[in-house]
Amino acid sequence: MSECDHPARAARLAMRRGEWTGPTKHAVPGYVQCNLVVLPRADAYDFLVYCQRNPKPCPLLEVTDPGDPAPHRLAPGADVRTDLSRYVVYRDGQRSEERTDITDLWRADSVAFLIGSGMSFDDALERAGVPKGQTWLYETAIETEAAGRFAGPMVVTMRLMSPAQAVVACQLTSRFVYNHGAPLHMGDPSAIGVDLEQPIVGPPLQDIPEGQMALFWGCGVTPQWAALRSRVELLIGHAPAHAFVTDRLSDQHCLP
Amino acid sequence: MSECDHPARAARLAMRRGEWTGPTKHAVPGYVQCNLVVLPRADAYDFLVYCQRNPKPCPLLEVTDPGDPAPHRLAPGADVRTDLSRYVVYRDGQRSEERTDITDLWRADSVAFLIGSGMSFDDALERAGVPKGQTWLYETAIETEAAGRFAGPMVVTMRLMSPAQAVVACQLTSRFVYNHGAPLHMGDPSAIGVDLEQPIVGPPLQDIPEGQMALFWGCGVTPQWAALRSRVELLIGHAPAHAFVTDRLSDQHCLP
Repeated sequence: MSECDHPARAARLAMRRGEWTGPTKHAVPGYVQCNLVVLPRADAYDFLVYCQRNPKPCPLLEVTDPGDPAPHRLAPGADVRTDLSRYVVYRDGQRSEERTDITDLWRADSVAFLIGSGMSFDDALERAGVPKGQTWLYETAIETEAAGRFAGPMVVTMRLMSPAQAVVACQLTSRFVYNHGAPLHMGDPSAIGVDLEQPIVGPPLQDIPEGQMALFWGCGVTPQWAALRSRVELLIGHAPAHAFVTDRLSDQHCLP
Repeated sequence: MSECDHPARAARLAMRRGEWTGPTKHAVPGYVQCNLVVLPRADAYDFLVYCQRNPKPCPLLEVTDPGDPAPHRLAPGADVRTDLSRYVVYRDGQRSEERTDITDLWRADSVAFLIGSGMSFDDALERAGVPKGQTWLYETAIETEAAGRFAGPMVVTMRLMSPAQAVVACQLTSRFVYNHGAPLHMGDPSAIGVDLEQPIVGPPLQDIPEGQMALFWGCGVTPQWAALRSRVELLIGHAPAHAFVTDRLSDQHCLP
């Protein structure tokens, strides 16, 4: 398959050339997408252990070798410095700037972490009869397991659906073990400390609509938040909904 | 539940007291068992990345903090220095000695890695109609993904069963994502470079018996072999079939 025929490679090349600066959500159906976290090697050990201790929000799909920007396993030939459409740079825990290229920030000790994204199962849900809809992001009262300097609350995505669709969503996302797996909660949002009126992303809600059920999955924003709270010197992440598109087919990669 | 009533805790305490020095295989049914690898902190980062890159043979269930011998998540109150029945010590890549206690070898920079074991699903297979039988260990021609100094061939377990049982085994072990998951191969052993006459553990075979099928799973011995090949200064592992017994119920822990 030539690059032009390969939707994931074509998307990454368009981003590399600066022609694609918009979101990837729903834009490259069928391919596993990843959250990105780039840290100096000095912080990488604790971050690795943090991901290991929190597999639901932080399913780690690839760790690059220090200084090597190529994710050889998920997308041979790709370069994490140029092949995302939009990055956010944080310095000492503070949001500094957005970029479409991070080549000049990449260092000999930079390590990239690619963390499975729930965007990978949205298409599969749709094919199974659960239509795409709004996804909310919320902070919860669930504390993650700390590792070294990394700690903080679990961030979740919330999707609303009928009870019958919720059964299908439990069945189907259980197979996506490397992309957050099964829901970590469903039903009453307050049971996990979610305040419907205070989303991180999405429109504030008063109540769950009649006949709908709220389902919550671990979210790859969690480790980014933990890294920020710890005020690491330099953290580069993907901009929300601007994920790294891998060559892995989500229907295949999901199998444990 | 008191310690006496809790099979996993009772087993660990008997090992701590030196009263239990035999294998744990099939001995504490229903509880997740783990392979143990203890390494100095200096080798721990590459080993963590090695496990991340090879999740089938190396499903990492817990990493202790440097110097802390307590696996707080899998077995609160346990101590990896005393609570296994038998250890093997390797120095500079050479097998040095066996022990029933490693307290005097534990250092301020020691890190313990607990890696899910296929022993965790043997009981579940039996309840699903796949009787317990011989398990073989073989080296394969499959190369693992290297990380730093760690590299080497994949080691697998092999089980023989009827084709109907093989279908059940695929279904059931797919759920045990933190304990090697689904088989990585079934059928012709030579397709993955397995020489039936040269097992690491188990009786040599000439052929697969008529009507039987060979199923192969990633094995937690793989990372121990990789660590040995790299001639790390000090590696402490569990003795084969003398695993760490956790408090996790295998029927619960398996769920992604």
